[in-house]
Amino acid sequence: MLALTILGNNSAIPAFGRNPTAQLLQTLDESYLIDCGEGTQLQMSKYKIRRSKISRILISHLHGDHYFGLIGLLTSMSLLNRTQELHIHAPAPLEEIIRLQLTVADAHLNFPLHFHPLAEAGLIADDKKLRIHCFPVKHRIECWGFLFREKKNPRKIDPERARIYEIPAAFYDQLQQGKDYVNKKGTIVPNEEVTTPASEPRSYAYCADTLFDEGLAEHVRGVSLLYHETTYLKDLHERAAARYHSTTVQAGAIAQKAQAGKLLIGHFSSKYEELDEFLNETRTVFEQTELALEGVCYRI
Amino acid sequence: MLALTILGNNSAIPAFGRNPTAQLLQTLDESYLIDCGEGTQLQMSKYKIRRSKISRILISHLHGDHYFGLIGLLTSMSLLNRTQELHIHAPAPLEEIIRLQLTVADAHLNFPLHFHPLAEAGLIADDKKLRIHCFPVKHRIECWGFLFREKKNPRKIDPERARIYEIPAAFYDQLQQGKDYVNKKGTIVPNEEVTTPASEPRSYAYCADTLFDEGLAEHVRGVSLLYHETTYLKDLHERAAARYHSTTVQAGAIAQKAQAGKLLIGHFSSKYEELDEFLNETRTVFEQTELALEGVCYRI
Repeated sequence: MLALTILGNNSAIPAFGRNPTAQLLQTLDESYLIDCGEGTQLQMSKYKIRRSKISRILISHLHGDHYFGLIGLLTSMSLLNRTQELHIHAPAPLEEIIRLQLTVADAHLNFPLHFHPLAEAGLIADDKKLRIHCFPVKHRIECWGFLFREKKNPRKIDPERARIYEIPAAFYDQLQQGKDYVNKKGTIVPNEEVTTPASEPRSYAYCADTLFDEGLAEHVRGVSLLYHETTYLKDLHERAAARYHSTTVQAGAIAQKAQAGKLLIGHFSSKYEELDEFLNETRTVFEQTELALEGVCYRI
Repeated sequence: MLALTILGNNSAIPAFGRNPTAQLLQTLDESYLIDCGEGTQLQMSKYKIRRSKISRILISHLHGDHYFGLIGLLTSMSLLNRTQELHIHAPAPLEEIIRLQLTVADAHLNFPLHFHPLAEAGLIADDKKLRIHCFPVKHRIECWGFLFREKKNPRKIDPERARIYEIPAAFYDQLQQGKDYVNKKGTIVPNEEVTTPASEPRSYAYCADTLFDEGLAEHVRGVSLLYHETTYLKDLHERAAARYHSTTVQAGAIAQKAQAGKLLIGHFSSKYEELDEFLNETRTVFEQTELALEGVCYRI
């Protein structure tokens, strides 16, 4: 199970009730916060997000609309008596900013905070349910995308058939891994007799803020759900390029080239009150597109 | 005219829809932002506050619930093309935090930002309509209160009587200052003949986060409106003292000792959902008390 909840979908300045970027990716075990614009902790309260489940926070880059809410979230977690460790993956200078703000407040966090500076493309976390890779994207300052891939899921045991073959529960873990069972008489029970195939591992890619860059498709090929920014509608492609952002049809082109399952678009410029045209334009290029809407949970 | 709008009234962690501390004091000419907790720029949008009118921002201390919204507000002001200068009065380390956050974003503000570190009690600004003094308060870290005093208001001209005495409009400024008029024949028209006394200058004191400290009354004696924190109800006076905060009846005692006109209480702990008891308890000591409620504008 992978699910993505949008906590903020706007660029730069909050506008029309839309908040700066923040997303929560959830597995059954853990939650991952991706970017943390100002007010993210308020959005978490609004949408009843359990902060204690968050094990890692990933920050794509150090423009304020992607991290100004982080220090407030960290200090609130501490005031709410969090004790379990938290990992932050972010561009290196963020560590100094956090330390400085804690120092001047004469504050320390109640929980261990592990800071992992993003330095090169590759694996950054290997957790129970998924692996996380980072990859560089083209923005005005150092900026990173993130790819989350579920690990191979366990096969599903048919309990009725497992009982018929008298397979002990202690062997269920191995059944889920695909092992055959050998009973007391030495007879082999083929795994396929008592299990059904696992669901296909799912994946999610977050491309952060980026210039239109076809090379991105290589990093996210075949991803189940691709998030790509669409700061502007297609007529403003020159402004988009000048500001290291993308348009609707450019996001659609990346999704198509990467053969993504679905595309989610967001990071809308504050100049737009209505978002319908973002969807219309992007769908002319890539039909399986949705708007990233605040408070909505997208099953992946 | 002095008016105070509350943008946030909660302590530490946002709770029950209450935001961290921020207040806006307005004269006819200028606005002053006092503290700037996370989400203040969103509150300004919600309550339709004109940011362009803000000439000074005063930060009492560097606990996050009093300043984490500042960097977002500054960058938004710049993105919204502010050009007029802005003054910040705050504890010295805030300047480094702001500069660092701008540097890592490769950002610069479109407007001149003048940083004035708070260093000693006394006058910190002498503006058209008012003077601002700061004074130290007792908190866990360096913390400052602010006193805003209107300058002497101009006398009010009775236009009908001024016409009768054939006083030229060019002399009205001097009439407002209390000068007598001498007409062409050399006859003196006493000022009191054509003007009425100015309204009494008003004043506002913001006592920030503070331990109960009777010495505070000296700094704010006779103030029209006194804001004093009440983080806790009276039964938690030991917790209040341990955390350098105050209770309801302690705030009332300061208002009484200072002979304030009115008392406004806020900075409520996140442990309280209902606020009625704050008002009831404080009024047992000082009758002219109101709750600082978000979005409400208090005429001073």
